[in-house]
Amino acid sequence: MAQHDYDRAAVRTLIDRVLAEGRTSLTAPEGRLACQAYGIATPGEGIAGSAEEAVALASGFGFPVVLKIVSPQILHKTEAGGVLLGLDSAEAVLAGYHSILANARAYDAEAEIVGVQVQQQLPPGQEVIIGAVTDPTFGKVVAFGLGGVLVEVLKDVTFRLAPATAADAGSMLDSIAAAEVLRGVRGAAAVDRDALAGLIVRLSDLVSDFPEIAEADLNPVLATASGAVAADIRLILDPSPAPARPQHSRADILESMERLMKPRAIAVIGASAEPGKIGNSVMRNLVDGGFAGEIYPVNPKADEILGRKAYPSVLDVPGEVDVAVFAVPARFVPAALEEVGRKGAAAAVLIPSGFAETGDHALQQQVVDIAARYGVRILGPNIYGYYYTASDLSATFCTPYDVKGGVALSSQSGGIGMAILGFSRTTRTGVSAIVGLGNKADLDEDDLLTFFAQDDNTTAIAMHLEDLKDGRAFVEAARATVPHKPVVVLKAGRTAQGTIAAGSHTGALAGDDRVYDDILRQAGVIRAPGLLEMLEYARSLPVLPTPKGDNVVIITGAGGSGVLLSDACVDAGLTLMQIPPDLDAAFRAFIPPFGAAGNPIDITGGEPPSTYEATIRLGLEDPRIHALVLGYWHTIVTPPMVFAELTARVVREFRDRGINKPVVASLAGDTEVEEASAYLFDHGIVAYPYTTEKPVAALGAKYRWARAAGLLPAGPH
Amino acid sequence: MAQHDYDRAAVRTLIDRVLAEGRTSLTAPEGRLACQAYGIATPGEGIAGSAEEAVALASGFGFPVVLKIVSPQILHKTEAGGVLLGLDSAEAVLAGYHSILANARAYDAEAEIVGVQVQQQLPPGQEVIIGAVTDPTFGKVVAFGLGGVLVEVLKDVTFRLAPATAADAGSMLDSIAAAEVLRGVRGAAAVDRDALAGLIVRLSDLVSDFPEIAEADLNPVLATASGAVAADIRLILDPSPAPARPQHSRADILESMERLMKPRAIAVIGASAEPGKIGNSVMRNLVDGGFAGEIYPVNPKADEILGRKAYPSVLDVPGEVDVAVFAVPARFVPAALEEVGRKGAAAAVLIPSGFAETGDHALQQQVVDIAARYGVRILGPNIYGYYYTASDLSATFCTPYDVKGGVALSSQSGGIGMAILGFSRTTRTGVSAIVGLGNKADLDEDDLLTFFAQDDNTTAIAMHLEDLKDGRAFVEAARATVPHKPVVVLKAGRTAQGTIAAGSHTGALAGDDRVYDDILRQAGVIRAPGLLEMLEYARSLPVLPTPKGDNVVIITGAGGSGVLLSDACVDAGLTLMQIPPDLDAAFRAFIPPFGAAGNPIDITGGEPPSTYEATIRLGLEDPRIHALVLGYWHTIVTPPMVFAELTARVVREFRDRGINKPVVASLAGDTEVEEASAYLFDHGIVAYPYTTEKPVAALGAKYRWARAAGLLPAGPH
Repeated sequence: MAQHDYDRAAVRTLIDRVLAEGRTSLTAPEGRLACQAYGIATPGEGIAGSAEEAVALASGFGFPVVLKIVSPQILHKTEAGGVLLGLDSAEAVLAGYHSILANARAYDAEAEIVGVQVQQQLPPGQEVIIGAVTDPTFGKVVAFGLGGVLVEVLKDVTFRLAPATAADAGSMLDSIAAAEVLRGVRGAAAVDRDALAGLIVRLSDLVSDFPEIAEADLNPVLATASGAVAADIRLILDPSPAPARPQHSRADILESMERLMKPRAIAVIGASAEPGKIGNSVMRNLVDGGFAGEIYPVNPKADEILGRKAYPSVLDVPGEVDVAVFAVPARFVPAALEEVGRKGAAAAVLIPSGFAETGDHALQQQVVDIAARYGVRILGPNIYGYYYTASDLSATFCTPYDVKGGVALSSQSGGIGMAILGFSRTTRTGVSAIVGLGNKADLDEDDLLTFFAQDDNTTAIAMHLEDLKDGRAFVEAARATVPHKPVVVLKAGRTAQGTIAAGSHTGALAGDDRVYDDILRQAGVIRAPGLLEMLEYARSLPVLPTPKGDNVVIITGAGGSGVLLSDACVDAGLTLMQIPPDLDAAFRAFIPPFGAAGNPIDITGGEPPSTYEATIRLGLEDPRIHALVLGYWHTIVTPPMVFAELTARVVREFRDRGINKPVVASLAGDTEVEEASAYLFDHGIVAYPYTTEKPVAALGAKYRWARAAGLLPAGPH
Repeated sequence: MAQHDYDRAAVRTLIDRVLAEGRTSLTAPEGRLACQAYGIATPGEGIAGSAEEAVALASGFGFPVVLKIVSPQILHKTEAGGVLLGLDSAEAVLAGYHSILANARAYDAEAEIVGVQVQQQLPPGQEVIIGAVTDPTFGKVVAFGLGGVLVEVLKDVTFRLAPATAADAGSMLDSIAAAEVLRGVRGAAAVDRDALAGLIVRLSDLVSDFPEIAEADLNPVLATASGAVAADIRLILDPSPAPARPQHSRADILESMERLMKPRAIAVIGASAEPGKIGNSVMRNLVDGGFAGEIYPVNPKADEILGRKAYPSVLDVPGEVDVAVFAVPARFVPAALEEVGRKGAAAAVLIPSGFAETGDHALQQQVVDIAARYGVRILGPNIYGYYYTASDLSATFCTPYDVKGGVALSSQSGGIGMAILGFSRTTRTGVSAIVGLGNKADLDEDDLLTFFAQDDNTTAIAMHLEDLKDGRAFVEAARATVPHKPVVVLKAGRTAQGTIAAGSHTGALAGDDRVYDDILRQAGVIRAPGLLEMLEYARSLPVLPTPKGDNVVIITGAGGSGVLLSDACVDAGLTLMQIPPDLDAAFRAFIPPFGAAGNPIDITGGEPPSTYEATIRLGLEDPRIHALVLGYWHTIVTPPMVFAELTARVVREFRDRGINKPVVASLAGDTEVEEASAYLFDHGIVAYPYTTEKPVAALGAKYRWARAAGLLPAGPH
């Protein structure tokens, strides 16, 4: 879309005038002018001050025409009887003009009547709505949906960040449930997709260029096979839009985060020798966790804590301090933070609560201001601390964690952080970091993403969040991360329905979670439906190699599992490969005549290990197959650990040969399948007992990431 | 709906005539006659054989009118140019008549033209579609949806068994996604719900009374504020409809099932002393499982097996035999079954495979015929056997199971059966029965339901199934069971889309799973989305008492869990109680000033056991609260087992006082929360570590059952 055809000056003048007049909404003619300045097609129209002028205008466009009252006080014209359609002769226009004026006066005798808008009536087309709102998290977002019942009752609408690219806009046409309508159904022609997408881009540019435009509705837009015209336009202004949040530079973020995650020296403010105190737990975990750098206890009442010399103030510490972990009550934080700032620390980890979350916003702001003055970044307050396993760093009051691996996790809530810790420990999940974000007074998800994206110890990221301080910064950081590693998000509070604004249709549709959902997808993150799913994806994603194509094949010993695994594949948006005849014949060579080839490949229940092995080998060997889903059935002939060992061995052998396909397994059987599943997980195969859904959901998450990262052609899901 | 106003004789005559003429579809006038005979309103209309007759008819109804070609060969009239709308004068009708004939001849020169239908054009109304199809599983089902894009693109349609009651029909109006449209949106009036529901009932009666009507479309039906009129009617006949399946009487089923589940004597056909053989495993499991009745090994080559005297044939067994468990190859089954029949056994448990599942339908039919001749019921073939813990009965080749409890489980697949066994064992799920159904040559889910419904050892039922041999018998058995105990169903193959028929709109919409889903809900069963959910519901439902009202309250130590638990409650269709001011004040008395009352009640993270205890007590004590969802956060102040023990103690105390509310808990913390969750489960509180979704989903399943059982007012879900 060529932005150079925009007449920004005309819109600037228009908006300034409307605001100068103390108005917050544009009249229809003003809205039309704004649209025209941005190349948004509108019907032929004009304002008539008399019935005769109306007839003259109508004769100019050609009949039929629509008449609409123009009054700054009458926003809902239809309710006011201020709209007449299908006037197909001079006589009809004449009579209509008079009746519309009478209706408007009856509706609001005080209303100032600017005139009557005479509008060319458009040919029949598909009604769609294109709008824009100012979201509290994401700023300007653009919306698209079909008109009428579909948006109003079924809320079938989709959102993207503004400005939207042509690709974003095109994806919106496919993202609504009723997308098929645009392709032409019930004998209707397909709409002009380029024209519709162009209109979305232009509206999104308009609201982005003019932050004062709080809400916009093009409703309806009439889309036909040869174009898209905005038949009605509503623009609502906010005279004082929120300013953009200041951003740290990427280099600054990385410098601070490097010192936070790989510190040479840590001071513990409020370190204590007394068991049960947070300042004692933090010290103990730093020591027990094996942190190899300097640990400086700071406590004016102690000489030594856990064998380390204690200092009355951080300023007394002899060397440099990268990180100060605070384990003192909230009220003592400001003074200690001043000293930490003067010491030149990169980050203050504020474990204590008693700030914004208990209502003390002033104390939190005081702390933020002090930190900003010294260039100290704050983690927290109100957190359990953080872990970075590559540094053997357990700066937390919980317990050390030492299963090193690729997943970095964060949580906004302490409870969820504890669940992350417990789950990781019991499942032996390989972790690079666990970070508490708490009140997010400063450091937040986008800072973590910026670090983890380039951190060689991290191969996947999972984040629990309840809100985003700056949705745009998050999206930007996520987009920079996703091409390199998957980002899983558990967005809590998703069922809370917050209406942003009531001034426009689009505003009424922009419920909190709908916008989050669309824009998180636009950012390429994998949204987990619940806590356990987030944890399972976090555990699985680093284990699974990236698939190189869409063809998934199910090999199962239990026909019943095969059916459920197929269901799960469809749910997860996976493509069950259509097995070509030669491959079908190759599989059939290994399975009993009453087994089923095709997909799932049912090797039947009574088969020995050699049948599992032969079919898995074939699945890994054939380059047309890109991922395997295994369904194991516990029998005496092939016990669980025999299956697990043979599968791990064969997968390893192929990986050693450079053939690295994702393999997941569902194990149905008696309790020995638990040990077998754990063994498989440890050997690079995502395996679960008693469920057909979990292994397939993990594979589905990997595919969603691979698509978002551009490593696979975009699928239908 | 008064059925006595139906003119069955007229429809009988009509259908017989159409079939006698070798046709399988009714003309429009015939369809109208059939509808009129069942009190389904149709527009004023008649057939004109000339343009003059058309004008006369139109003048009779009043203008405008619609003209439609009538020809048995032209089913898709619009495509043939055979429909003209809005003819509002005698001249227009005259001209229209001639053009419609010309179009029809151009479309199909061979088509026999019966005449032109002149139809009163109806006032604008909401277009809906009401239809009926013959489903292979459930027989006649009736369908309802909104017209146009909503059914065709969004497939927003709902199904019920025919005949439908007035209550069924009314529920259909609320079951579509766009239900709000019927209540009036965008300035439209609400439709006449009674008229619409009446029309659904009447069509469902019509197709039920005449099995030859394979498919029916009333499309569109025009619904207005004052009625509902079927504007177009299509009826498709099947000259040879499938006969109803023969049914066993309830008394016969119970007599056989009692002897199967509580046998005094079991014979093992093919018992073996050789470890590794199925006939040895079955013997061992019967003995090791502690079965107290007689166990008779049958094996012509042995004198004694596992210390029990062996017999050459079941006919040589001295006493009566209730059950014969077969552990011989399939080909030996018929002869042995003859003997079992002659011996007078109630049931033959056919473990062997090699029947229909491997393609040998003839052998399976032979076995079925033998069993029917002797009145022996067959379980299987192709199964792992069955368990009934109250009889200490483990008639299976797996391993014994001895955690007695209330849940009866069945599976169609052996693999899923093994998963049931392993899951139950590892979670110590209290089980009354685990039954393999396999090929379901005879005994199937409805027989099991009939038994378990009245079995005092069973308090909940969970079934994995891939198909139903007789959907109507299942629904009948489920409806008889659900008022007494919950029935959970995992229907596998739900994503398989099978189109039943292409002859009607309704047929094209009746994808396999859509019909299953609606009718399982109509039957009152709880459908589990996946295997693990079925198992978790089975484990949880017998543990939870039945709620006495809708008010759910969340009490949480972690604010973050509270948000996720709220999300989960909304997902599960639960009602978060609006806390009245006095109760709010009562909770506030126990929690810190910065905690949040309301719902969730956030007691905050650092609280001692007494705060958990006080708030849980209040939640149990106040009669306005009906269920509790607890969110625990692992801290040093309140360790996991302390929380678990106090919660179990308080809940027990209230239960002893007769206050028996469902309580579920989500435990966020380090690995000790696993032991605490298990302890809580053992003490009647459904508790899970690391997940906010699972405990709430279990509570949601209990509520769904309570509503289906009529124990709660029907909610919005």
